[in-house]
Amino acid sequence: MTQKAIYPGTFDPFTNGHLDVLERALNIFQEVVVVIADNSQKQTLFSVEERLSMIREIIEDYPAVSVEVLHDGLLADYARQKGARAIVRGVRQVKDFEYEFQISLLNRHLYPEVTTVFLMPNVKYTYVASSIIKEVAMLGGDVSKFVHPSVLKSLHGKLDESKQHKPNNI
Amino acid sequence: MTQKAIYPGTFDPFTNGHLDVLERALNIFQEVVVVIADNSQKQTLFSVEERLSMIREIIEDYPAVSVEVLHDGLLADYARQKGARAIVRGVRQVKDFEYEFQISLLNRHLYPEVTTVFLMPNVKYTYVASSIIKEVAMLGGDVSKFVHPSVLKSLHGKLDESKQHKPNNI
Amino acid sequence: MTQKAIYPGTFDPFTNGHLDVLERALNIFQEVVVVIADNSQKQTLFSVEERLSMIREIIEDYPAVSVEVLHDGLLADYARQKGARAIVRGVRQVKDFEYEFQISLLNRHLYPEVTTVFLMPNVKYTYVASSIIKEVAMLGGDVSKFVHPSVLKSLHGKLDESKQHKPNNI
Amino acid sequence: MTQKAIYPGTFDPFTNGHLDVLERALNIFQEVVVVIADNSQKQTLFSVEERLSMIREIIEDYPAVSVEVLHDGLLADYARQKGARAIVRGVRQVKDFEYEFQISLLNRHLYPEVTTVFLMPNVKYTYVASSIIKEVAMLGGDVSKFVHPSVLKSLHGKLDESKQHKPNNI
Amino acid sequence: MTQKAIYPGTFDPFTNGHLDVLERALNIFQEVVVVIADNSQKQTLFSVEERLSMIREIIEDYPAVSVEVLHDGLLADYARQKGARAIVRGVRQVKDFEYEFQISLLNRHLYPEVTTVFLMPNVKYTYVASSIIKEVAMLGGDVSKFVHPSVLKSLHGKLDESKQHKPNNI
Amino acid sequence: MTQKAIYPGTFDPFTNGHLDVLERALNIFQEVVVVIADNSQKQTLFSVEERLSMIREIIEDYPAVSVEVLHDGLLADYARQKGARAIVRGVRQVKDFEYEFQISLLNRHLYPEVTTVFLMPNVKYTYVASSIIKEVAMLGGDVSKFVHPSVLKSLHGKLDESKQHKPNNI
Repeated sequence: MTQKAIYPGTFDPFTNGHLDVLERALNIFQEVVVVIADNSQKQTLFSVEERLSMIREIIEDYPAVSVEVLHDGLLADYARQKGARAIVRGVRQVKDFEYEFQISLLNRHLYPEVTTVFLMPNVKYTYVASSIIKEVAMLGGDVSKFVHPSVLKSLHGKLDESKQHKPNNI
Repeated sequence: MTQKAIYPGTFDPFTNGHLDVLERALNIFQEVVVVIADNSQKQTLFSVEERLSMIREIIEDYPAVSVEVLHDGLLADYARQKGARAIVRGVRQVKDFEYEFQISLLNRHLYPEVTTVFLMPNVKYTYVASSIIKEVAMLGGDVSKFVHPSVLKSLHGKLDESKQHKPNNI
Repeated sequence: MTQKAIYPGTFDPFTNGHLDVLERALNIFQEVVVVIADNSQKQTLFSVEERLSMIREIIEDYPAVSVEVLHDGLLADYARQKGARAIVRGVRQVKDFEYEFQISLLNRHLYPEVTTVFLMPNVKYTYVASSIIKEVAMLGGDVSKFVHPSVLKSLHGKLDESKQHKPNNI
Repeated sequence: MTQKAIYPGTFDPFTNGHLDVLERALNIFQEVVVVIADNSQKQTLFSVEERLSMIREIIEDYPAVSVEVLHDGLLADYARQKGARAIVRGVRQVKDFEYEFQISLLNRHLYPEVTTVFLMPNVKYTYVASSIIKEVAMLGGDVSKFVHPSVLKSLHGKLDESKQHKPNNI
Repeated sequence: MTQKAIYPGTFDPFTNGHLDVLERALNIFQEVVVVIADNSQKQTLFSVEERLSMIREIIEDYPAVSVEVLHDGLLADYARQKGARAIVRGVRQVKDFEYEFQISLLNRHLYPEVTTVFLMPNVKYTYVASSIIKEVAMLGGDVSKFVHPSVLKSLHGKLDESKQHKPNNI
Repeated sequence: MTQKAIYPGTFDPFTNGHLDVLERALNIFQEVVVVIADNSQKQTLFSVEERLSMIREIIEDYPAVSVEVLHDGLLADYARQKGARAIVRGVRQVKDFEYEFQISLLNRHLYPEVTTVFLMPNVKYTYVASSIIKEVAMLGGDVSKFVHPSVLKSLHGKLDESKQHKPNNI
């Protein structure tokens, strides 16, 4: 029997830190499904379709990885339906940890058969959060070491768009 | 191929919180080895032999679990030698997390092929730390809900010993 | 003389964790006033009237408890006006604690005669935050163990509303 | 009926931060018993008798306060025996908070009728921990603003003792 | 050669806690440039011009201090352009610290020659955050001890504005 | 006028993380004095003389750095006597931060003219704590990337000593 895990997130965008967690997960699980959580409440830079397309490119060389979108419903329920016995979460810092802890305890209460597994990205990704990457890229900083080429290209595309729409400073 | 993990600790003594983490680990791994770290620097209430004997009784009904003692050497090195691809650690609180994080980053540096996996015990074990159990038991509190009967018996044995040796208060 | 405390919050909605803190407060104070803070800056799921009505139902069997709304003005000032010598706050986690700490220090500076008292809900409510309850309920999860029947009914009402207004996914 | 609380601690020595918490507790409770925990495991600078005598001097002007020593047994059990419905704890920082949280959850489990109440000392006592006071005093620093004159005198006494016993640096 | 540092922030508004950090920075650096970060994403109470004008008044008596606005671009890049070898950041609490840590690590990666220096405001400013000051002022609380007279005047101006625009409660 | 800072610590032993903080400090200060705190309460692996000798070797190529031992007295007082206006402290993690914060607030109270400056080592030193280095070295792990050759040699010397004294495991 194949052991399967899901790796959920907003992935706006997917970073090299996420990839690192994914690779750690593949050390343990035979199959990992990246799940893009389509939370309509949360404002994102990239649409679900854009995120799906970038992640597809990134995982091309990982036969044991696939990507899906969760439009609605609870994550732990989704894991159970897919026959996944684990939810993978990356934690970098104490502040990540407390929120993840709460969600994980709730999921455990709702679906005791699904186990949340916390993995740490490499220490060099401590500061590679999607929010920081977006901000740095938008301010003209070089983020090529932190994201896949496909994400870099998309970030530059957004940057050009935002420049056209920005009110003239003069 | 069997997927194996080690679950290391001082286990002075093994609590129901530890058992809960062990059971979570068995959801993910086909085989788990409980490893008693025999750190000679650390003063323990129970000898290595006592801890080994208690844990043997506790894991009797878990065919996928065994127990060993690590007298010397690095944990991640031991994991590699045993063919384990994961080290399981339970985390209950933020303060646990930071220390575990440091150790895990170091292990990752030394042995990149071994992955540290953090699991959470049930929320009801948040306050079930070995140190607290020992203190409460020594002060005459009832800890029967927090440890296995074999541990309870051993704690009472230690309590009787300590009473005999205690200087008379009168 | 009756000792009175206020128990302020957004209560969007009031959960069993809040009820647990309220019951702890009643161990210490002869009278507790639940105060709904009507902060116009904060987007809420339930209107002030809805929250008031739900809490009234919940506290029906607690003669020592009443509920009021604070539309404007500082909490510590309100406590003083009402003759309350204490502000009760529930804390579940480290991240709650730091923010509460700041507010409490400020209140102490402004109104030294009013004391902030921190109480802990039962550990089983660690993950029962209003924000999480709302999210789980909206995604179809079962939250009946975490809220009073009157809150559950209101949550289902909101869920039906949101379904009608949601753009068709097909 | 008088509402009584206990305020336990090692108090090695009692500081102005402790006094501040005690005064806050008197805003809420009609009677507060300071309880010196005589934990034989913990190495202290002052003997139980010295701590008792210093605290007696400090609380002289507080008719609602008394001081006792708990030689053995669980704190929550002691509270119950004394008819106290609350245990008062001062918290200054996040790191205090997590440990206190665990102990308080355990006490709640063992004696549900006793409530732990967390109070904050004035922000100016954030760094006034007994351990820091002792260290600063031993190194010749001026701690007169942080402790009662009776404690200051005792600290100087200890300092003289330690100087006599210290091996000559020359 | 003059040693120069920048002290960036949103400063919405500049508080006495900020001033305290600035004065600490002047103990170490010969010249400090206060940099108002004009982040268009962040909703502010005061416009960039208002903040600039208030800070100009506050720093009038500090010949070694100037104020500038950063409309666009990365902070560390700006520091380098200005010949500043340090970025000064005030930290009051653990939660400040983790975010600052991430940003600082990123800046260090991008511009290794610019060093982030963390300074602590006086403990009495622990709870003097711009967001809290604004909230207290808007609710009618007295914040005169926490901000410069020029800021107090501007806060009262905003308060009057908001009263006129507020929908009638009756 | 030369700007001078002291960089105090136990340095048991001095690691590459310490060196990294020292180099950051040299970006800001013209002169840095490494101060070995000879706290007789604390059990160390290396004697003060051994630590002094190792650090002398490490700082050989840094003309702006010297090393001294503080046998007694308060650090902030020592800084003042030496004409240093700053105390440099490295912080890696939240748990470091809270303790440092307390000490720094106390020092500020005692000697307002001395400023504590917090610097971050490179993220790759997050897990390079002296205590961890010692433990890993004693268990036979390779720590050559984390310490200077002079420290490595001394660690191996201690390891040989400890092996001779260790009771035979057979």
